Amino acid sequence: MRSMLRSLLTCAASLLFLLPLKAEDGSRLWLRQEGGANGSATLPSANRRLLPTLRIAADELRQAWRGAPVRLLLEKNDALAPDGFRIRPTASGVTISSATPAGVLYGAYRLLALQAMETSLTGELTESPAYDLRILNHWDNLDRTVERGYAGRSLWDWEELTDSMATDNPSSVTYQRYVAYARANASIGINGTVLNNVNASPQILTRAYLHGVKRLADIFRPYGLRVYLSVNFASPMALGELSTADPLDEDVRHWWKAKADEIYRLIPDFGGFLVKANSEGQPGPCDFGRTHAEGANMLADALAPHRGTVMWRAFVYSPTDADRAKQAYLEFQPLDGQFRPNVIIQVKNGPIDFQPREPYSPLFGAMPRTPLMAELQVTQEYLGHANHLAFLAPMWREFFDLVPPASLRAVAGVANIGTDDNWCGHPFAAANWYAFGRLAWNPALGSEAIANEWLRQTFGTDEAFVAPISQLMLESREAVVDYMMPLGLHHIFAWGHHYGPEPWCDIPGARPDWLPPYYHRADSIGIGFDRTRTGSDAVSQYPPALAELYNDPATCPEHYLLWFHHLPWNYAMKSGRTLWDELCRHYDRGVRQTRGFQQTWDAMKPYVDPDRFADVQARLRIQARDATWWRDACLLYFQTFARQPIPYDLERPIHGLDELKQVQLPIGNHECPDEELLNKYR
Amino acid sequence: MRSMLRSLLTCAASLLFLLPLKAEDGSRLWLRQEGGANGSATLPSANRRLLPTLRIAADELRQAWRGAPVRLLLEKNDALAPDGFRIRPTASGVTISSATPAGVLYGAYRLLALQAMETSLTGELTESPAYDLRILNHWDNLDRTVERGYAGRSLWDWEELTDSMATDNPSSVTYQRYVAYARANASIGINGTVLNNVNASPQILTRAYLHGVKRLADIFRPYGLRVYLSVNFASPMALGELSTADPLDEDVRHWWKAKADEIYRLIPDFGGFLVKANSEGQPGPCDFGRTHAEGANMLADALAPHRGTVMWRAFVYSPTDADRAKQAYLEFQPLDGQFRPNVIIQVKNGPIDFQPREPYSPLFGAMPRTPLMAELQVTQEYLGHANHLAFLAPMWREFFDLVPPASLRAVAGVANIGTDDNWCGHPFAAANWYAFGRLAWNPALGSEAIANEWLRQTFGTDEAFVAPISQLMLESREAVVDYMMPLGLHHIFAWGHHYGPEPWCDIPGARPDWLPPYYHRADSIGIGFDRTRTGSDAVSQYPPALAELYNDPATCPEHYLLWFHHLPWNYAMKSGRTLWDELCRHYDRGVRQTRGFQQTWDAMKPYVDPDRFADVQARLRIQARDATWWRDACLLYFQTFARQPIPYDLERPIHGLDELKQVQLPIGNHECPDEELLNKYR
Repeated sequence: MRSMLRSLLTCAASLLFLLPLKAEDGSRLWLRQEGGANGSATLPSANRRLLPTLRIAADELRQAWRGAPVRLLLEKNDALAPDGFRIRPTASGVTISSATPAGVLYGAYRLLALQAMETSLTGELTESPAYDLRILNHWDNLDRTVERGYAGRSLWDWEELTDSMATDNPSSVTYQRYVAYARANASIGINGTVLNNVNASPQILTRAYLHGVKRLADIFRPYGLRVYLSVNFASPMALGELSTADPLDEDVRHWWKAKADEIYRLIPDFGGFLVKANSEGQPGPCDFGRTHAEGANMLADALAPHRGTVMWRAFVYSPTDADRAKQAYLEFQPLDGQFRPNVIIQVKNGPIDFQPREPYSPLFGAMPRTPLMAELQVTQEYLGHANHLAFLAPMWREFFDLVPPASLRAVAGVANIGTDDNWCGHPFAAANWYAFGRLAWNPALGSEAIANEWLRQTFGTDEAFVAPISQLMLESREAVVDYMMPLGLHHIFAWGHHYGPEPWCDIPGARPDWLPPYYHRADSIGIGFDRTRTGSDAVSQYPPALAELYNDPATCPEHYLLWFHHLPWNYAMKSGRTLWDELCRHYDRGVRQTRGFQQTWDAMKPYVDPDRFADVQARLRIQARDATWWRDACLLYFQTFARQPIPYDLERPIHGLDELKQVQLPIGNHECPDEELLNKYR
Repeated sequence: MRSMLRSLLTCAASLLFLLPLKAEDGSRLWLRQEGGANGSATLPSANRRLLPTLRIAADELRQAWRGAPVRLLLEKNDALAPDGFRIRPTASGVTISSATPAGVLYGAYRLLALQAMETSLTGELTESPAYDLRILNHWDNLDRTVERGYAGRSLWDWEELTDSMATDNPSSVTYQRYVAYARANASIGINGTVLNNVNASPQILTRAYLHGVKRLADIFRPYGLRVYLSVNFASPMALGELSTADPLDEDVRHWWKAKADEIYRLIPDFGGFLVKANSEGQPGPCDFGRTHAEGANMLADALAPHRGTVMWRAFVYSPTDADRAKQAYLEFQPLDGQFRPNVIIQVKNGPIDFQPREPYSPLFGAMPRTPLMAELQVTQEYLGHANHLAFLAPMWREFFDLVPPASLRAVAGVANIGTDDNWCGHPFAAANWYAFGRLAWNPALGSEAIANEWLRQTFGTDEAFVAPISQLMLESREAVVDYMMPLGLHHIFAWGHHYGPEPWCDIPGARPDWLPPYYHRADSIGIGFDRTRTGSDAVSQYPPALAELYNDPATCPEHYLLWFHHLPWNYAMKSGRTLWDELCRHYDRGVRQTRGFQQTWDAMKPYVDPDRFADVQARLRIQARDATWWRDACLLYFQTFARQPIPYDLERPIHGLDELKQVQLPIGNHECPDEELLNKYR
């Protein structure tokens, strides 16, 4: 009898293996809990009219909660900030309370996450978000390409969304995807989404597109997710309705007010506008002799009656300035205090452009009378696209450790999401979406805690898996820095697509600040960008104590060294080694670490389903080859200046410099090269 | 005054640096000594009529010798074998004596080599060659392609050589090259050369070509180098003169006698014929129902009156036999004693075909009544062509350690020489030409001694260079075995060109024994070719004690293990590890060693001229990438059978199996892929 039972069990286990309920395509992200038979949640009658957000919370708990009954409560409670929640064990079960429906939903997701992570709740848990606005920026074009997107096409099916004859079919794949997108964001507290690229097409403001935006807004609303749009500053002209876009022109002001009114008629909780103006060819107020403040304020005035917000980007740099790193500060700092209260200046974390490592942008802290928000890049434009494993929480942690979270009004993350089954391309790229959401909720969270949360929910709670892979994740971004551009080097990427190395890049007629030699400045004497007081003086944009620290190579942190200094090849580093030797060792370490990641991952085979295991394995393989490519390209190129051997105890290049200089990947700025293409061209 | 002198010296040194007397293109091989002002050599009057060999010896010494005067003596001396020499320090200088002019020349070269190596002569030095015949086989086609040649085109300019109107111009580049070729061979004791491919064109026996052969023979003769030809067994038919090539046919026998007479009228010291018959599509006596012995003897009879030799190759394998490794033995061993005295059976060192490692061919020792000679492959058909550094003395040492040199009549080496400036493609490939000559002279020489000799003459005598690079050379062939086919694996090369890995190769309709799976036999149980008594029984072709040893996996040397055995993936090796793990570790070691070679070489920069340094550096770079290619291809492919992980402490693959299976290098059997082509296709 016992043996018969055993064989039945074995048989069932085999069937389970042969017939998995759901393909492991990563589509469930960190939300993988299947039906708990005894899940129950009750909504007090007073709250029932506040559907559907609360109903979603109840449904989620009913479907997956395996613990005591949960009571959901919406209550005025001054101790709870908007969207905050309290989870309280009671005699008969658990109560989740909040002052807002979204807060209840966030509490429900948190409770389910604790269950997934097998973390027991001891006593009350009260949380509230650090920022009211936790927003994703999609750089999605209306043709469904995604600038710097490496996970398929844009989620937004504009052809269908703009079809006035179409009706929303909740069971369609597209609709389900929209819901799943909103749900995933809600589960980590993200409450805003800018649907379209900051290089914005004016078409988004036409009636047809706004109708489509309304349809998305209606789907997202129950999940607490508001929609925003990037707008083209010259829209009144581009749409053929006016002959100017001058922000002080009455017709222009009227046009925008009317447009805002039109939008809010469709979408009463529309969030507002994100604007890239007078930057990289985009139109803006300066085209009409006006300031950024005058431009932003005009839009803010149009949105103000509806409580809408303008997020105005500070990502500007003119082709003439001697140091691009100074430009945003020079243009924006003098405007401090001139913006309307519903304008937030959106500043990239660093002064250049989402490099693997940058010091923080000195604008932070320099505009005390202006709300600022940080723009972080979740998509890995400069970090190996969807091919490299790079967990970005440590990078953002670095930022928040220097820029006090309380000094910011909000945070935005440039999304890495597309139509790929697993949403983000690399299975581990979803960890960055997750980490962005978690840090936008609580910027004091540690990287390790976030990695652990994500791993436990996404792959399982076995410590034999979580411990090594969490360690791998925590090391991953620094490894990328090491094999790409250590010691403060920056922007030595290949032209256009920014995938591989091209430190020698020279495009005749190109803006100098679009070319790597502008940034690394390698010459027979040394390497690095002199931003000291006797150089470009970018250091002086920082607070005096920090300026002092950065200005002196002896006190400047070595990971920023070549960002702030041009130093001789034989400059003595803290290790006692020369700058050249140290540079070589960083590249070598990056390569070795990447190989180590392959080893660590391969050993995880018993803990991971075959599909995701193979996917990560294949991408780590690409990453290991890419790391060697980076090392060889950079060291062989810089060696032509340094004229010194790579230390002989280090592994040697396997590529020739001439060969590497011929590599030109035929990809655009919305494509990640696959293994076949890399093998062909690299 | 002193400072002026110093600056003059500095100036002179700079000039020397800027204007080297001779580009370091490797063309001087190991013969690099420049004019010693006080070189002197005298020829006793009795010897003067024996020019020009003795004159060459005298000239060489006059040009480069920097020691005491040398007296060259031709004397009957029973203590000295033909071509042997004695170098004897005397009160007034040094005397070199020999029974033959060539012996004097060999002595002169040896004396100069000692000088180049900075080895002092203490007392008498007497040497004589182990074999009368020390011969190179050129697989040169008449269109100047070289089968398995990776160093440019064939040296022999047949267009010019067959031009009856042309006159020999001793100052022409071609003529100088012929002289340099003969001189290089003489300097290491090689005294025969087969000019054309064993896949022989009948055209070589036409009047025009024989005239060209005579011109080469005349140039080579003073250097003691005799010419031989490969002949096509069907020549009488192919040249349109007879309707059969049956060796027992009187007309055929007469045709060959007449052809031999014609050749000897032109070249009185012509060496003889090399024959590939009934092998890989070549015609032979079996086509007419005759045996190899009948075919060889017919040719031997034609040559005998002129004291010519037939070298008849035992490289045969039928498409039907169950084990190709047994074929040569099965066909030739029964013919023992049936060959004329002037026939030598030429047997490849191993039973298959010049693999990175083979056990010796069991024919050696199995034909006691027949003269045998060993055919070694100097050109690296199966060892990475001209891209990989593989010093082959250790491979040949392994052969001679199992096959007593005294049991052989002669040795032949398949040449790696072409029109490249440096003769052999890879700067270190010349070491294999050198090593072959030295071992043909003295098969008891150690690999380390040969490496040291070659390095000291070719690059210089600084121990800081010689010691590490000699070590590198000694390890190099085993490294290739490790990353290509360790533990007795063999012939898993890519189709046709044999450059890269293709263990999965399957060409519809191809002979099974031309396909790798025939050799590795990987399956779900294990890997290897069962040649035990219960398998193909190839072991029984070896002497009983050895057969016993090889038949038992417990006693079979592990480096031959998969040659003789098909063993389970989990078979316990001597290390205690499984077969699969051990296999993985060998591949890994090969990769790491190759990277180590790069490191060792790079550190040698101060000791090597820039041209040769860069050339070797670039080829080691290719080799390191190729090693990874091999490792990944073989392990990923075998893993589909073994279904076990590569041990997790080992570096992981960076290629995908599907990707690797698509690699098809577009090269022929006479081409070495260059770095650009490899990067494009691999």
